[in-house]
Amino acid sequence: MNQSMIRYVLGSVLKIEALFLMLPWLVAMIYHEDVAVYYVAVAALCGLFGLLMTYKKPKSYVFYLKEGCLTTAFSWIILSLFGAIPFFATGEIPSYVDALFETISGFTTTGASILADVEALSHASLFWRSFTHWLGGMGVLVFLLAVIPLSGGGSINLMRAESPGPSVGKLVPKIKTTARILYMIYFCMTVAEIIILLVSGMPVFDALTLSFGTAGTGGFGIRGDSIASYSALQQWVITIFMILFGVNFNFYYYLLFKQIKKGFMMEEVRCYFLIILSAITLITLDIRHMYPSVSVALRDASFQVGSIITTTGYATTDFDLWPNLSRTILVLLMFIGACAGSTGGGLKVSRGIIAVRTVKKEMLSYIHPKSVKKIKYEDKPVEHEVLRSLNVYSITYLFVFWLSVLLISLDGHDLVTNFTAVTATFNNIGPGLSMVGPVNNFAFFSIPAKFLLMFDMLAGRLELFPILILFHPHIWREFFTKRDDGD
Amino acid sequence: MNQSMIRYVLGSVLKIEALFLMLPWLVAMIYHEDVAVYYVAVAALCGLFGLLMTYKKPKSYVFYLKEGCLTTAFSWIILSLFGAIPFFATGEIPSYVDALFETISGFTTTGASILADVEALSHASLFWRSFTHWLGGMGVLVFLLAVIPLSGGGSINLMRAESPGPSVGKLVPKIKTTARILYMIYFCMTVAEIIILLVSGMPVFDALTLSFGTAGTGGFGIRGDSIASYSALQQWVITIFMILFGVNFNFYYYLLFKQIKKGFMMEEVRCYFLIILSAITLITLDIRHMYPSVSVALRDASFQVGSIITTTGYATTDFDLWPNLSRTILVLLMFIGACAGSTGGGLKVSRGIIAVRTVKKEMLSYIHPKSVKKIKYEDKPVEHEVLRSLNVYSITYLFVFWLSVLLISLDGHDLVTNFTAVTATFNNIGPGLSMVGPVNNFAFFSIPAKFLLMFDMLAGRLELFPILILFHPHIWREFFTKRDDGD
Repeated sequence: MNQSMIRYVLGSVLKIEALFLMLPWLVAMIYHEDVAVYYVAVAALCGLFGLLMTYKKPKSYVFYLKEGCLTTAFSWIILSLFGAIPFFATGEIPSYVDALFETISGFTTTGASILADVEALSHASLFWRSFTHWLGGMGVLVFLLAVIPLSGGGSINLMRAESPGPSVGKLVPKIKTTARILYMIYFCMTVAEIIILLVSGMPVFDALTLSFGTAGTGGFGIRGDSIASYSALQQWVITIFMILFGVNFNFYYYLLFKQIKKGFMMEEVRCYFLIILSAITLITLDIRHMYPSVSVALRDASFQVGSIITTTGYATTDFDLWPNLSRTILVLLMFIGACAGSTGGGLKVSRGIIAVRTVKKEMLSYIHPKSVKKIKYEDKPVEHEVLRSLNVYSITYLFVFWLSVLLISLDGHDLVTNFTAVTATFNNIGPGLSMVGPVNNFAFFSIPAKFLLMFDMLAGRLELFPILILFHPHIWREFFTKRDDGD
Repeated sequence: MNQSMIRYVLGSVLKIEALFLMLPWLVAMIYHEDVAVYYVAVAALCGLFGLLMTYKKPKSYVFYLKEGCLTTAFSWIILSLFGAIPFFATGEIPSYVDALFETISGFTTTGASILADVEALSHASLFWRSFTHWLGGMGVLVFLLAVIPLSGGGSINLMRAESPGPSVGKLVPKIKTTARILYMIYFCMTVAEIIILLVSGMPVFDALTLSFGTAGTGGFGIRGDSIASYSALQQWVITIFMILFGVNFNFYYYLLFKQIKKGFMMEEVRCYFLIILSAITLITLDIRHMYPSVSVALRDASFQVGSIITTTGYATTDFDLWPNLSRTILVLLMFIGACAGSTGGGLKVSRGIIAVRTVKKEMLSYIHPKSVKKIKYEDKPVEHEVLRSLNVYSITYLFVFWLSVLLISLDGHDLVTNFTAVTATFNNIGPGLSMVGPVNNFAFFSIPAKFLLMFDMLAGRLELFPILILFHPHIWREFFTKRDDGD
């Protein structure tokens, strides 16, 4: 195991965090808030640790999948452990466990909160809380790959461990260029949203934080009622951007490099929009009688569908009060999730498409046992290995899901609360139904339950295995005994 | 497609049903009930159709998987269509759709009822209702294979389509002998339960019907409170027999042929008992405060765990009133289900074991990508084809499950009702929670919803594909155009 390389990457991650912690410090200075000192102190702490850990360069840059997974898991944990300090130190979140929950919820772009009153937070903390979404959305390691020269062929293993979706496509042969293109698209789209929101008359601070939450498909708001009190126009802007950030980024890459036809032929993107349109139509019909006009019902339906399928988690209404058909559709959307290669969570539309085709093919094999048709996806036959890992992923997903529901039920709350609390954290959505509905928060859970949900958020964001292998004794035996880093 | 063979088997199935319909007729004669005439009339009808359909022997006995699946699906449907007539004709169930629901629920050993007051039924109808469980438990086609000379190598395809579990093991090289051994074990165990219940002081009629329901892991009771009003001893007897009928019948085969050690080494059986013991312990601890003594709590916990994991569905208490931990455990048990090769439903313990090992192996492959260890089950490496079909099965299961939840929610009931109604029918259990809890019934659903649940019951009992292929246009195209039956 290449321990010194892991140390080096973790150090670099801390240096990046130090850098980004200067942003809330800046916000605190602008608003003349006392909390500034805490942000600058934690930034210094991160920077110090980062410098110490990167002082000695690793001799070998060889980096296998196991190191990639471990590094990813450790990076996200260390990022959260440090990122939670300001909330706790400023006293704005009195319990460190709660602060950690909020931070993990931020970085994993879940958006599940333990805060009863967000509006009591300082501007700096609100900013940092939303910014964690932005950083977590595209991934901190992808950022690292984009800005830091990390030679060696192993960097694909970092990207693979952190990126959502069944298979990592390198857009261009060089990982570094891929990472840069991704971040560039991400950055430009975020800026576009900020500008449009500003033009629509939204204050600068709100436009910034809400755009971070939209871009990362996170969902932390800065008002007690999430997005409900913004204007209809602003709600539509956010709806559209949420849906756009749930699109596979390969689509934007194709548009950018003038392969427009190829982009619009992407099955996943077509299917994603088809699901969204169907869900909006059904829900609008179902909730129409609760609204003064169809257009208001349509707006609320679109917002909630966009928010849930992309696993953002903003809300403009308490959808827990909607009729059961609409609530069921939302729960189903929670599982489907956004496109692979987007910032959204869930099982991903592409996995759904391949799963449906697997079922179809199996049915056909009962009728024509000798047919050897391969399953196709995006006009290419799906490799056996992709199918196998998709199947294993689904089974593991179910397994972790049910185990979480069982464990969380030790807290004794009702079935819908338990079921949707796990659904909303594991799929990185944010709000669920019943006691964890959009107008409630997660503060009432016991400390063990909170740790379980933190685990679910990380496992959901990192697509299970990078986090799960931490529970396999083999990895620790290797980590503590075998060294092949050349030191 | 060998249509004439399909016709011949269906005819034989109807002849068997005619024969068995004489049993409730006999019961009606004993109790001097007017309904006797209906039972004998329907028996005659079945017999007539059966004779007409088997009058001409098929020229070719060649029988592929597709014919096996189709025949199985058609058999179960035709069996239910005719079996429902008496309930409707006697006026005891005024709607034919409800009568069909009740009959499918019986044959698939689900035990979900649309009756508000079972005690209003005649003895004959109560008997027939419970007897459908017994016939459906081991399977009517397996019965056919045991008693009727059905030459040709294709009979394994019938058995494969009807038997529960990931792979059909022929106990002995000849299918006919396998089927006979299975039915012999099944018959003897049923008789044993009847005798023990009689000795415990239960009336003959109760002992017979309840034993049918236990043996088939069905769950139709003959009293309004299911099993609650029977003595503690009788409840324990039923608990033990429910659990025994959920054991893989290979276990009994081994015991019977003095391979006792081999029997007790069966991983599935060990795991099954481990799950049962853990669940009973946890629930007893959780519900203790609601009961006067630990022993009563233990009895209720054991009964409900045995009833749910084997997907029987009897109840001695309204477990919907239990604390949330216990209710969650029961919901989880609904999915696990009994052993493969038993009369129980659900996903089956063996699938669970293999799934857990798949996850473990995947985790290991992240750490040692080059390791090529095969997954073992019952001390043998699991073939790739078994793994693949297990994976596909899980995905299909999930797919049908979620689609059913979505469709049933059009009826507008609460989430727990919808979710557990599908769970309880798809896994052939019977009662769910909330509005379909053990003290309620399924009568309130709309007619389309009832048809959906009937589909779920059949799909659950026949393990998806034999029923699902009915929705694939290819099979109908073949059915109506291609003939290779030699006629």
